[in-house]
Amino acid sequence: MLSIDLNADLGEGFGHYVVADEGHVLPLVTSASIACGFHAGDPLTMRRSVRLALDHGVTVGAHPGYPDLLGFGRRDLGATPEEVTAYVLYQVGALAAVCHAERTVLRYVKPHGALYNRAATDAVVAAAVAEGVRLADPTLVLLGLAGSALVSEGQRAGLRTAAEAFADRAYLADGTLAPRSRPGAVLTDEAAVVEQALGIVREQRVATLDGGSRPVHADSLCVHGDNPRAPALLRALRRRLNGEGITIASFAG
Amino acid sequence: MLSIDLNADLGEGFGHYVVADEGHVLPLVTSASIACGFHAGDPLTMRRSVRLALDHGVTVGAHPGYPDLLGFGRRDLGATPEEVTAYVLYQVGALAAVCHAERTVLRYVKPHGALYNRAATDAVVAAAVAEGVRLADPTLVLLGLAGSALVSEGQRAGLRTAAEAFADRAYLADGTLAPRSRPGAVLTDEAAVVEQALGIVREQRVATLDGGSRPVHADSLCVHGDNPRAPALLRALRRRLNGEGITIASFAG
Amino acid sequence: MLSIDLNADLGEGFGHYVVADEGHVLPLVTSASIACGFHAGDPLTMRRSVRLALDHGVTVGAHPGYPDLLGFGRRDLGATPEEVTAYVLYQVGALAAVCHAERTVLRYVKPHGALYNRAATDAVVAAAVAEGVRLADPTLVLLGLAGSALVSEGQRAGLRTAAEAFADRAYLADGTLAPRSRPGAVLTDEAAVVEQALGIVREQRVATLDGGSRPVHADSLCVHGDNPRAPALLRALRRRLNGEGITIASFAG
Amino acid sequence: MLSIDLNADLGEGFGHYVVADEGHVLPLVTSASIACGFHAGDPLTMRRSVRLALDHGVTVGAHPGYPDLLGFGRRDLGATPEEVTAYVLYQVGALAAVCHAERTVLRYVKPHGALYNRAATDAVVAAAVAEGVRLADPTLVLLGLAGSALVSEGQRAGLRTAAEAFADRAYLADGTLAPRSRPGAVLTDEAAVVEQALGIVREQRVATLDGGSRPVHADSLCVHGDNPRAPALLRALRRRLNGEGITIASFAG
Repeated sequence: MLSIDLNADLGEGFGHYVVADEGHVLPLVTSASIACGFHAGDPLTMRRSVRLALDHGVTVGAHPGYPDLLGFGRRDLGATPEEVTAYVLYQVGALAAVCHAERTVLRYVKPHGALYNRAATDAVVAAAVAEGVRLADPTLVLLGLAGSALVSEGQRAGLRTAAEAFADRAYLADGTLAPRSRPGAVLTDEAAVVEQALGIVREQRVATLDGGSRPVHADSLCVHGDNPRAPALLRALRRRLNGEGITIASFAG
Repeated sequence: MLSIDLNADLGEGFGHYVVADEGHVLPLVTSASIACGFHAGDPLTMRRSVRLALDHGVTVGAHPGYPDLLGFGRRDLGATPEEVTAYVLYQVGALAAVCHAERTVLRYVKPHGALYNRAATDAVVAAAVAEGVRLADPTLVLLGLAGSALVSEGQRAGLRTAAEAFADRAYLADGTLAPRSRPGAVLTDEAAVVEQALGIVREQRVATLDGGSRPVHADSLCVHGDNPRAPALLRALRRRLNGEGITIASFAG
Repeated sequence: MLSIDLNADLGEGFGHYVVADEGHVLPLVTSASIACGFHAGDPLTMRRSVRLALDHGVTVGAHPGYPDLLGFGRRDLGATPEEVTAYVLYQVGALAAVCHAERTVLRYVKPHGALYNRAATDAVVAAAVAEGVRLADPTLVLLGLAGSALVSEGQRAGLRTAAEAFADRAYLADGTLAPRSRPGAVLTDEAAVVEQALGIVREQRVATLDGGSRPVHADSLCVHGDNPRAPALLRALRRRLNGEGITIASFAG
Repeated sequence: MLSIDLNADLGEGFGHYVVADEGHVLPLVTSASIACGFHAGDPLTMRRSVRLALDHGVTVGAHPGYPDLLGFGRRDLGATPEEVTAYVLYQVGALAAVCHAERTVLRYVKPHGALYNRAATDAVVAAAVAEGVRLADPTLVLLGLAGSALVSEGQRAGLRTAAEAFADRAYLADGTLAPRSRPGAVLTDEAAVVEQALGIVREQRVATLDGGSRPVHADSLCVHGDNPRAPALLRALRRRLNGEGITIASFAG
């Protein structure tokens, strides 16, 4: 029986800065990746985010990023592997304690932004991320881009891994995402997004921009909660997945 | 049989900034309070500090502070109790993960700087610190100023507590430390420091600036490692304590 | 002929964090106080804010705060006078350069948050703020709470000063603002706000919570742009002030 | 008549962190590049550094860096040109105000660390740095690596530029510095350093690692003040330059 997880980011405010309607997709997803204070988030915001996730019965993951609040973790610092491991370990430990305080358990780790992108292709950095996760808690699941170095290095480190795919992003022939700057890189038509999701989950294939298709194995679909149409899209997606008999559930359940 | 702990701060550098000779008292103390990234410290520095403490067989504690690197945690932010709890929880969780990575266990928590001082007299803030510690791990020992609100609120929260006293600071009649600005507030004569330490440990009394004395119960003596004469002083102190048959050992052993 | 300035804050985002509709009151005010990177704001946000102010023909002021992004400059750091002077000098210099780059001139300085409040009552800190302004540029106008230590210390330092009052806040008998926690502290009725504004400008008096009234001399009325009703309120206020023949213009023109 | 400037960094502490003996080369150099609060430095440290430079009659320059205190500005953030311009403008403006407060004038700008290195080879970033300097004050001199994109883009922007060379670093055949990881990259023999300096100043040539030599035109020699042997080296260098009749003076005098 087929099953898929739907994940969204959470807790990306900082102090006075609150991300509006951040939680409005929580009733519709199964996993929430919570910022840990480096690219966004702060101790109080993290507690509130964990509570919010629990209120919606959503599995909690850590979303560690580079220590670059000004750049929202989207700039590659070129941190050394030793630094990357320590950054991940620190942030995962902090959020695990917050989860413990809220009587829940941290289940997975998905790196954020530039760290996610770098770990997708740079095996040394991917291994450094995996090492940080393993040192913090070897029972954590490492969530990375399907087919990426992060997933393979996570497995090599002995971690349980999960792979994510994107229902609303166009793929290139090599399995990477088309850069946002390229025309057609972001799917905006709801029906097309639902169709791509279904293909990923049921056929384990995704169309590529050159007109072909390629295999993709995904345990989770990433949803961008900051899209105002996200709730409508999620509802359509859930209806369709349910209609096909596909279970929507956390990969880390 | 009498026993006393000797504690010092550790890991108070940040990135490029390394505190010179910070570890030079480690061979002579039994507990090290490690900065957790808010007033000082960063993930890599924390790992190195935990390793250094382990190399010297020293018990590791967390030294959480206010998020004020520029002010080195010495300025009172007037954070709310809810913020204080979250700050402590976050920092303790991060350092606990680092300890876990280094195959050791975090044993105690001692707040830093302005947070330490505020928690010594403000019961609401003291309770907020204790709550952060308890939420992170109720087996952690809370270390605070002997006779302070932090110790009593820690006990009220059900935590094991430890009390520290100062061998090199003059006390006022009410049991608080004389402000550094006051003449005679800091004892610089080695013999006098050793004598005050011995009085605290053996008699559980300390002389006060007005010529009297008062009871003090201490599980640990705080040593300022940034004093260049600290190693010499510690050696003299250890000789004398040993000579009196007093065991020097961690309170959290 | 009577004249009054209307001022609002601007540029209080940071990096990824954008304050929604922040500029929506700009067409209706005459002065904008721009955050300078300490409690909010960053170099790019500052350039955009100065451009936005210029687009609306609004006079530009600096809004320096404490270096506490997490607390949005609303927590009193207890910085020393020497630190306060340096913080103000640094921030004013940075924004003055941004203004110069945009071919305009910085006209005034109004401290933010906890620094504003502390400088309202603490003459030593008020003098430290004034010193920072004077050192940066003695032709800058210092804007502070009407009747506050900041205004008097600014004058003592030889600066031109301007006083601000609040049309939507209740006053106590001593001329300070009623704390927000107190019932009736914030005026929400549009007519009442307009009436208080008119009393301040025309009669130079304001009603106090105890049923009396007291003199207030204001060069500027502060408007909170983050209030969704601010534009409607400002339009009503401008209509009424215009109807009374009162000029609405920058105090620093 | 030949003339050369000797420049060193200054003010690279932060809050509690003081760089030991940082000023010990000031009596021996003619220019000091002062950190501006992004990679290091804070408002109070900047004031102290400007005063220290003035006490030694040394010309003051700005040393703006990336906003990465944890990485000491040595990691390339990949900031956009628009961000780079704003970062430089902000930092230069802040330090110019501090100089004004101390009754001196900021004379030049030399980017720090990763920003310096990137601007040496990336013309777009070099132009962005030059634009930030020009917008702040077009009379400032832009100091960059001899032969670098920064110098040529500074000239293209209409700025006065100055070129610096390194007496203690080995050059490659293309005029770039040999990476520090390469054997022989750093000259440690005092006589060799003095000889390379002399060749640069008098012959406008420098030996290259492959056994050849290439032209280099330098207005300034960079001195690393954090080297404990720096004062001895500088004294030897000054003796030799003086002996050759070469004037040691600021390029921005």
